[in-house]
Amino acid sequence: MKKGYFITFEGPDGAGKTTQIDLLSDYFKSQGYDVVLTREPGGTELGEKIRQVIFEPGKQGMAPEAEVLLYAASRAQHIKEVIAPNLLAGNVVISDRFIDSSIAYQGFGRGMLDYVELVNNYITKDFMPDLTFLFKLDPQIAKERVSFKKQKIKPESKEFYETAMKGYEYLEKKYPDRICSIDASMAIDEITYRIIKAASQKMFGC
Amino acid sequence: MKKGYFITFEGPDGAGKTTQIDLLSDYFKSQGYDVVLTREPGGTELGEKIRQVIFEPGKQGMAPEAEVLLYAASRAQHIKEVIAPNLLAGNVVISDRFIDSSIAYQGFGRGMLDYVELVNNYITKDFMPDLTFLFKLDPQIAKERVSFKKQKIKPESKEFYETAMKGYEYLEKKYPDRICSIDASMAIDEITYRIIKAASQKMFGC
Repeated sequence: MKKGYFITFEGPDGAGKTTQIDLLSDYFKSQGYDVVLTREPGGTELGEKIRQVIFEPGKQGMAPEAEVLLYAASRAQHIKEVIAPNLLAGNVVISDRFIDSSIAYQGFGRGMLDYVELVNNYITKDFMPDLTFLFKLDPQIAKERVSFKKQKIKPESKEFYETAMKGYEYLEKKYPDRICSIDASMAIDEITYRIIKAASQKMFGC
Repeated sequence: MKKGYFITFEGPDGAGKTTQIDLLSDYFKSQGYDVVLTREPGGTELGEKIRQVIFEPGKQGMAPEAEVLLYAASRAQHIKEVIAPNLLAGNVVISDRFIDSSIAYQGFGRGMLDYVELVNNYITKDFMPDLTFLFKLDPQIAKERVSFKKQKIKPESKEFYETAMKGYEYLEKKYPDRICSIDASMAIDEITYRIIKAASQKMFGC
């Protein structure tokens, strides 16, 4: 039976997730927890190989269905090898992106919500996050914050990102108890304060 | 609308599929067809990258769900990039393995039939083979025919292969009109005769 806590961070690249993940990790360590930081796609040896395929798919790109399936394959391995054993051991697992990214980017962005849910529900059903911080930031500002060199995937159209953000709004409504939205334009320490407050309330009830 | 013919070859490695694929291809060419030979996993640039991940997954191996999803991702790309456009153009597509391999090896071998069907039905529904040649051979004999060097994946247990063969028997019963079973212990030219006869009957009605 799951004893640990599973926290995910979602939202566009460039919204400041990494900084806050490190600060939240420090907080849990100060409370005596073993903390595992991980990410998707990736997080395992197999997952990092899949990540490389996703980011360098070749000249013909990826069929939308192949994209859905590769992200899900990375996730299945991630759950089995990292998330499940650490949660069973009572540790805190913090993942940079998880299922909600697939709902937003492949489900809404690629218009394949039914297939994304069908494929993923089977693998995530026993390992949904206890808490998800959704960083909200104007896609244009997020884009400007991510330097060209750091950009991992071929940039998509403005419309694609806007549709993906609608996916996050859908998730906010669907999981109001799990998803905690963060205005990523706030000062860093203000965001940290809110995140630690929400995490400690959820986990320790105060 | 699909105008071409889609033929797949199934059964254990070492059963002689490759030889017969080449001979059937020659036959169709002699009938004036453009023939595309392809394979799974693989068949596209992305698919070959996925094939490499499947055959070299890393130290921890693959979660069964990840295995199902990687084969399906390769298949989704294969359908979009190779199978669909060639069938629409009226060509003959011959694939060394397709959906039935997933049913047999991941569905039966890994005990994940429901998930394999759920994940794959969505991508294969409009592109099921017109005809499938299922090569049947004692797994032990097939194994002996495949040299150590050529063995692509870490060998599985005897029980795994036996269960996978039960998957092929399930498919023979489920799709009697599509699946044509071949006793792979017969002489090569006898097999070729039967395959060409079955293919021409199916396609030309004689």
